[in-house]
Amino acid sequence: MDLKKIVRDIPDFPKPGIIFKDITPLLQNPEAYKHIVDRFVARYREKPVDVIVGIESRGFLFGSVLAYVLGKSFAIMRKKGKLPYTTVSYTYKLEYGEDTIELHEDAIPKGSRVLIVDDLLATGGTAAAAAHLVEKMGGKVAELAFVIELAFLNGRKALGDYPVFSLIEY
Amino acid sequence: MDLKKIVRDIPDFPKPGIIFKDITPLLQNPEAYKHIVDRFVARYREKPVDVIVGIESRGFLFGSVLAYVLGKSFAIMRKKGKLPYTTVSYTYKLEYGEDTIELHEDAIPKGSRVLIVDDLLATGGTAAAAAHLVEKMGGKVAELAFVIELAFLNGRKALGDYPVFSLIEY
Repeated sequence: MDLKKIVRDIPDFPKPGIIFKDITPLLQNPEAYKHIVDRFVARYREKPVDVIVGIESRGFLFGSVLAYVLGKSFAIMRKKGKLPYTTVSYTYKLEYGEDTIELHEDAIPKGSRVLIVDDLLATGGTAAAAAHLVEKMGGKVAELAFVIELAFLNGRKALGDYPVFSLIEY
Repeated sequence: MDLKKIVRDIPDFPKPGIIFKDITPLLQNPEAYKHIVDRFVARYREKPVDVIVGIESRGFLFGSVLAYVLGKSFAIMRKKGKLPYTTVSYTYKLEYGEDTIELHEDAIPKGSRVLIVDDLLATGGTAAAAAHLVEKMGGKVAELAFVIELAFLNGRKALGDYPVFSLIEY
């Protein structure tokens, strides 16, 4: 199935010069959504993973289904102040300024093997921060999985030795 | 399965006097997550539904899985400015000020029967706005489904004649 034909290019979003990859047509198309989830399931069914983390908020759309199908614990990683219970946070630099992501303090049991899921890997800033936060909490990053990878932005470099998997590459 | 024992009460979140119902322990517990999805699936498997709409962002956590299992089109409803493609919006009043929700213009084909999913029904303001937006786009609201209903806040009243279903009631 050619998922690239379904992803929609949005020029100049969220700002001029950026071509945004809109994944909502993949959700609207049940065959495409199933194809994506099934490919993730095929890859992770036999791998040792204890917890799946979905990155706010489009990571929820794929991480949730994967956790359900595989019967794994699912945790949501959110921007600062969004999670209601006691959190552990990690602050990282952006091109301008900084950002902070959080997980609930009970989301990652010590020693657990964690699969981090998001819709898209771009420069890898948020993904690397997610991996660092998981490790800060005593988890081990099993892999980072993305539906789309913008390979020309070299996100894998920002992720160093962490294993990375993606379904669609540009 | 007693889901109420798994939901976590967070006093004074997001502001003093409010007891927030934290659904993240339901996600972390694969049996609980499966139980919730399976109950939704049992209810909607035989009902005529064309599109499932998840309300940002905790509605994504349940709507996504339900759409995957049932093989339905899934659409995400977001706050103003978050969706990249052309949108249809609906503005509604809050206690103080107003808020605007959006759907992509191609999310709801005319005449389609729409199931709206969110984690929690409180006063019903956002849920009613979601239903109005679906109708504005030519869809028919088949039902609104929630994991949790705070019945003491009378959200069903705000939803008028729209069918409502919830799994856990307080």
